[in-house]
Amino acid sequence: MRQKVLEDGASELSYEIRDIVKKAEKLQHLGREIYWENIGDPIQKNFKIPTWMKDTISAILQEDNTYGYSHSKGVPGTRDFLAKQTNQLNGVQISKEDILFFNGLGDAISTLYQYIDPTSRVIGPSPSYSTHSSAEAAHARQAPITYKLDPDNNWYPDLDDLYNKVKYNPAIVGILIINPDNPTGMVYPLEILERIVAIAREFDLFLISDEIYAKVTYNGQRAFTLAEYLGDVPGIAMKGISKDFPWPGSRCGWVEFYNRENEPDFDQFCRALENAKMIEVCSTKLPQLAIPKVLSDPRFPVYRQELNERIGKRSKLITEILGTIPQLKFNETKGAFYNAIIFEEGVLKPHQKLQIEEDGVRQLAESWVESKDTSLDKRFVYYLLAAKGICVVPISSFCSELQGFRITLLEENEDLLSHIFTNLKEAILEYLES
Amino acid sequence: MRQKVLEDGASELSYEIRDIVKKAEKLQHLGREIYWENIGDPIQKNFKIPTWMKDTISAILQEDNTYGYSHSKGVPGTRDFLAKQTNQLNGVQISKEDILFFNGLGDAISTLYQYIDPTSRVIGPSPSYSTHSSAEAAHARQAPITYKLDPDNNWYPDLDDLYNKVKYNPAIVGILIINPDNPTGMVYPLEILERIVAIAREFDLFLISDEIYAKVTYNGQRAFTLAEYLGDVPGIAMKGISKDFPWPGSRCGWVEFYNRENEPDFDQFCRALENAKMIEVCSTKLPQLAIPKVLSDPRFPVYRQELNERIGKRSKLITEILGTIPQLKFNETKGAFYNAIIFEEGVLKPHQKLQIEEDGVRQLAESWVESKDTSLDKRFVYYLLAAKGICVVPISSFCSELQGFRITLLEENEDLLSHIFTNLKEAILEYLES
Amino acid sequence: MRQKVLEDGASELSYEIRDIVKKAEKLQHLGREIYWENIGDPIQKNFKIPTWMKDTISAILQEDNTYGYSHSKGVPGTRDFLAKQTNQLNGVQISKEDILFFNGLGDAISTLYQYIDPTSRVIGPSPSYSTHSSAEAAHARQAPITYKLDPDNNWYPDLDDLYNKVKYNPAIVGILIINPDNPTGMVYPLEILERIVAIAREFDLFLISDEIYAKVTYNGQRAFTLAEYLGDVPGIAMKGISKDFPWPGSRCGWVEFYNRENEPDFDQFCRALENAKMIEVCSTKLPQLAIPKVLSDPRFPVYRQELNERIGKRSKLITEILGTIPQLKFNETKGAFYNAIIFEEGVLKPHQKLQIEEDGVRQLAESWVESKDTSLDKRFVYYLLAAKGICVVPISSFCSELQGFRITLLEENEDLLSHIFTNLKEAILEYLES
Amino acid sequence: MRQKVLEDGASELSYEIRDIVKKAEKLQHLGREIYWENIGDPIQKNFKIPTWMKDTISAILQEDNTYGYSHSKGVPGTRDFLAKQTNQLNGVQISKEDILFFNGLGDAISTLYQYIDPTSRVIGPSPSYSTHSSAEAAHARQAPITYKLDPDNNWYPDLDDLYNKVKYNPAIVGILIINPDNPTGMVYPLEILERIVAIAREFDLFLISDEIYAKVTYNGQRAFTLAEYLGDVPGIAMKGISKDFPWPGSRCGWVEFYNRENEPDFDQFCRALENAKMIEVCSTKLPQLAIPKVLSDPRFPVYRQELNERIGKRSKLITEILGTIPQLKFNETKGAFYNAIIFEEGVLKPHQKLQIEEDGVRQLAESWVESKDTSLDKRFVYYLLAAKGICVVPISSFCSELQGFRITLLEENEDLLSHIFTNLKEAILEYLES
Repeated sequence: MRQKVLEDGASELSYEIRDIVKKAEKLQHLGREIYWENIGDPIQKNFKIPTWMKDTISAILQEDNTYGYSHSKGVPGTRDFLAKQTNQLNGVQISKEDILFFNGLGDAISTLYQYIDPTSRVIGPSPSYSTHSSAEAAHARQAPITYKLDPDNNWYPDLDDLYNKVKYNPAIVGILIINPDNPTGMVYPLEILERIVAIAREFDLFLISDEIYAKVTYNGQRAFTLAEYLGDVPGIAMKGISKDFPWPGSRCGWVEFYNRENEPDFDQFCRALENAKMIEVCSTKLPQLAIPKVLSDPRFPVYRQELNERIGKRSKLITEILGTIPQLKFNETKGAFYNAIIFEEGVLKPHQKLQIEEDGVRQLAESWVESKDTSLDKRFVYYLLAAKGICVVPISSFCSELQGFRITLLEENEDLLSHIFTNLKEAILEYLES
Repeated sequence: MRQKVLEDGASELSYEIRDIVKKAEKLQHLGREIYWENIGDPIQKNFKIPTWMKDTISAILQEDNTYGYSHSKGVPGTRDFLAKQTNQLNGVQISKEDILFFNGLGDAISTLYQYIDPTSRVIGPSPSYSTHSSAEAAHARQAPITYKLDPDNNWYPDLDDLYNKVKYNPAIVGILIINPDNPTGMVYPLEILERIVAIAREFDLFLISDEIYAKVTYNGQRAFTLAEYLGDVPGIAMKGISKDFPWPGSRCGWVEFYNRENEPDFDQFCRALENAKMIEVCSTKLPQLAIPKVLSDPRFPVYRQELNERIGKRSKLITEILGTIPQLKFNETKGAFYNAIIFEEGVLKPHQKLQIEEDGVRQLAESWVESKDTSLDKRFVYYLLAAKGICVVPISSFCSELQGFRITLLEENEDLLSHIFTNLKEAILEYLES
Repeated sequence: MRQKVLEDGASELSYEIRDIVKKAEKLQHLGREIYWENIGDPIQKNFKIPTWMKDTISAILQEDNTYGYSHSKGVPGTRDFLAKQTNQLNGVQISKEDILFFNGLGDAISTLYQYIDPTSRVIGPSPSYSTHSSAEAAHARQAPITYKLDPDNNWYPDLDDLYNKVKYNPAIVGILIINPDNPTGMVYPLEILERIVAIAREFDLFLISDEIYAKVTYNGQRAFTLAEYLGDVPGIAMKGISKDFPWPGSRCGWVEFYNRENEPDFDQFCRALENAKMIEVCSTKLPQLAIPKVLSDPRFPVYRQELNERIGKRSKLITEILGTIPQLKFNETKGAFYNAIIFEEGVLKPHQKLQIEEDGVRQLAESWVESKDTSLDKRFVYYLLAAKGICVVPISSFCSELQGFRITLLEENEDLLSHIFTNLKEAILEYLES
Repeated sequence: MRQKVLEDGASELSYEIRDIVKKAEKLQHLGREIYWENIGDPIQKNFKIPTWMKDTISAILQEDNTYGYSHSKGVPGTRDFLAKQTNQLNGVQISKEDILFFNGLGDAISTLYQYIDPTSRVIGPSPSYSTHSSAEAAHARQAPITYKLDPDNNWYPDLDDLYNKVKYNPAIVGILIINPDNPTGMVYPLEILERIVAIAREFDLFLISDEIYAKVTYNGQRAFTLAEYLGDVPGIAMKGISKDFPWPGSRCGWVEFYNRENEPDFDQFCRALENAKMIEVCSTKLPQLAIPKVLSDPRFPVYRQELNERIGKRSKLITEILGTIPQLKFNETKGAFYNAIIFEEGVLKPHQKLQIEEDGVRQLAESWVESKDTSLDKRFVYYLLAAKGICVVPISSFCSELQGFRITLLEENEDLLSHIFTNLKEAILEYLES
């Protein structure tokens, strides 16, 4: 080309959650059956959308209006509905003007970080969901800045680490909270959330709260939302329907701006996001129209309750199988549908392996691990995939120096679930003893 | 906030097509009926989606799989279908791997320019569709760079202007073509398109062709697509279903990468776009699933043909009404559903006005035009809106120094269409003589 | 202009040490005699350059060769001479190729920070010499990043503060040490310097040591230089003749690169500085030619020793006068020829003033302090200037939140010195009690 | 290092004029005598500084004041003197406040471009003096932007090329003129300079005029200065004493700001340059003090006249020797002391060589030219250096696609001059016929 085309920040775009899929597909070609424990898509794990919900959405498609553009910020009636839901929490009060729809939170996330000045940073959790950390890093053309989630303390944020990083790094202008968290499956106590708000208030930061899993909690937990505990600090909540309808293919999410009237710079930033969406005209309309109909259907809470109970049951089951392996740091999950399982320090070694009988499969696995730069958890994950067909994601792919793997809690067939995780347990023990 | 939050380029985000709506809404509150000739949404202009198409799409919603994520680049079968369609043109040949789905072209456009290095520029047409020019300007943190479309020569690109700007500005790495064009409604002859390719080849540029209106041509015209005339030059075609199903609310568009194997830098750029989408997981799935079903339905070409004939008829009708006003540069449209109508130089003056009887409406209109900085075409547009309720967009809002206005050809009710444009003609004459 | 000309970082360029001069000059016009205690130029304070040194330099001017360009890195013989001097310290060993001459350290400083990537930062002391902090801030287009010098602990660096800021801010790639320090007049113990090196080693940073005052120590002190305590960490020492000949008007300084062979990125950076100088051809030659002649003259050490004793005596005298005021944090100086004197917290108040009899002078002073944004130490400094003609620099102008003022130890006339500082003491007491 | 240290623009820093020196030094080690025709340093070519000038400067060194800092913008009396000199031309009128001293024009140039926004460009001549083009390119992190000097038209600027590049590239905010020019030795007619001003006025640009050779003209020529022909357009003249005293080792140059009151953005830029100098405290003082004394000495004009006559005579002599070779584009010089001599297109070929008898020297030369990427003029220059010891600089090193070499007119010994250039002629003929 005539001169350099590609922007420097693009090198920060990586999403290793999808990279493992390519390896699994190669094994499929060799005839290996794969158990997909890598991606948070309930549909792929045999989940059935209820008929009443399908019918509700189909009915909307009969209206001509459904096919047209919506208001650039999103369908006004839906924004009104959502503003009321937030206001009923008796925390921050908003109007429909404080809500902006995106094509899923992926769109919201990449747009939000794109319009933050490259010299300013948002600190997020580690392990970290890659969509946030990659987009934040791309905007700054530098590695992500993270605070530790502590596997030795229920995966709660290490508040000293967060406090020090904020205090001593004046480039930080915002803090990202993911609650319930992906990849740890943890739900944070109110006290911790309030202490994060106190840090934001002390250093004049704004908060971003990714609440895509807010309705996915179980075994007695519930997730506090930003609007409830934020007080007067500027904040952005990110919400969507991917995980609770669940309808990930709809690409429908929205942000709620809190306290923008308190802080002109923050308000100007919110307006820039609105303008960015306006030049794209609007976000996808059908799911927006479905939101009030589905969420106010009396069948929805019953249905969601039942789903959560099923996930909660699986969480217990997995805890029973994996929770007692002494070489693992294992925390029982409270929300979302992932668990991040960490190897105790020192138990992983670069010579460990699993027995693989088929020559072709074994050679493929060996080719994946031959580089010395392969992290120890990737080594385990590749052997697990090749030997047992269980596809999980290494924790080192989540912006973390910890060594472990992320599983999902989505398998609807309980016998199969039990089979997969018992196999996984055996693989761990064989690998560590090899 | 602790330090600067907003990125500098955000100041380039503006979309005046929507700004006029706010003025029109104020008039609605005062009781004035508004004729919305400002936005290219057929649905809003009483267009009816055919029942067979609604049923086709509804049926897809009955499948559970529809609700899940798709492959991050888009549904493989749909990409296969589209690659075959392109390959049948006997131009550039592609596979499904050369297709990447976005949430509408707005998403494609903002992502594409975001990942071009800020020092490199893409030159686009003037008048220009704001979504392109704003996103390109935001990426460079500077005003857009444009080549002239010539209202005195059928709105064809001024190739000398384009050639000189490319030759003498080494920062330009790409050329944007919009064909059929918004806002001019023009369709370009093959010879002109080939000359633009020759410029790109001479200076080692890539081409972007926005083909959202490719299927919307009439009165004997058809639009050549980039794949047909590009040869071996690197290029990106932008396509979608917003305007031809039409389903703008679906936010479903895709790009096709041509000749990426010829140019490593271009290929690297294409991969960055794929990675950017991957970190958002995927684009909206339902419309992707609908594409092969709708486009290969035998009813579709018949239906589209009929729609185009209706638009073509309206184009003729509007030409009859407005085409003979000597103070206008008027070009009959050939595609898309807009027309850009320009006042001859010197006929607009800062004292002109339309008579408005209601006091409140007149005072509002006068407040809009009192600033000396108001461009002369905005002045006309505001008076037209206030006096006649006809909402059009000033051409100076399309990155142009020309003075005029954009209308749409979407009004399905022929009597109403005739009424609106006759009123518009009278308003023009009254205004110019005032 | 056609588009934006000025680079954003330029807004960080400020040098308030010179701003106070403009105020003082206005008072001179009103007839007020000024005592210039604001700038570190011995010549301006009646210092006499010895005849032997003048003659040595004059003799060089008789050679035609003196008038030509030098080697772009500096006169080779001089660089050889200086490399040997460094090597005799038995620390880091260098050759003449590791030395690069600049037009004074101001030139070295602005060039050095200019070629550091804007995303990378060098942390420096606070209070800070403005030339470093402004140039570093301009390169990053953000406020300077600083570690605390502690007036309650001999003005030594607060190592915990430094350690935390480095640890928690990954953008920091280098640490600046000024030793002996301006504005505090402090000389650092070896142990502290070694702990700073340990921090640099732990976090893979380089060190910059500004040693312009290295030969200006007294009362039993000597300053350790970077070459002595650096070990194998990459580092840059900044040296010059402005303060020890003293010949500030020569604009002659140089940098010494240490351990560049250990670290390819650091070596590449050093080469960029060499290239930057090469495109300017070379630095000023006459003072370079003078360096070996003057420094190896047996009269030089005797002369320098005597000067240092005189400064040391003045340091004691000033300590006697000001050291016992309970509202001040006062540290006796050990090197350089400044002292930073801090008011205890809370003793400065926004209503305090000094009595000024002349109406014009008083009105001028009052106009300077009427803004509420005037820092409390500026308020004191302006009153001091107006009431007593003593020109000092507020400490808040040195990148510090402390409130105080910097004096110089340069007045050669001891009676005058005593007069000025006794007056200053009285002014402080009057001001605080007003 | 912890993260990226080096700024991207640093890759644009290159100064091949000095690179050839390294090759020549290698040949010196092999015993080859070198004729240094590569650098514009009269002193190195046996020029003698007159005794009266040496004495004048030495006398200044006897004053203590000489050793101190100067005012940050430069010695006020000298700036007054220079402002009067400019004002006597009856063009733009300035005061001492419009003059800013630097440590030579190299310092002025690198500071000036550093504070231009990276998105804005200054177009300069090609062939181009590397100090300008490298610094401009480094500021923009892109290749330099240049207008053609035409060897087929007296090396005058190609005004059509300049006009088109300015017109069609909105990033250009300034035009650089070097007059008399390095490397072409040309002096521009008033009409051409006025047409460049007209372009700047039409497009709202500022002008930079490098006038370091303004006093070095001969054979009836005189150079017009920016102040004379600029009118009311904003401009910066760059002046110094390197070439007319000549005292290149002094690093003393200054800029004069013209019409800054007409244009707030330009004025703000000038103030930024003043601030940048202020944080370096000041520029070298001794030469500033010498300027009024030397320039107003009645012996100076006589002396300069005589020098110019000698250069003019050498210009004629070189014309006699080289001006008739048909394979060269040769223009007789009018000012400065360089000539850029271009080979007609097609006469240089990649197999040509000069006979070299000594094995070691021949092998060295062959190693320099073995890469296919070696430009054809570098190939000639390296053979010339190895075979004849004549060190010249390839024109392709001056930001040019032309193929040729730059010589100097500085050799004071006329017989030696004749010997060198006759040798050069023979080498050209042998090389082209080989």
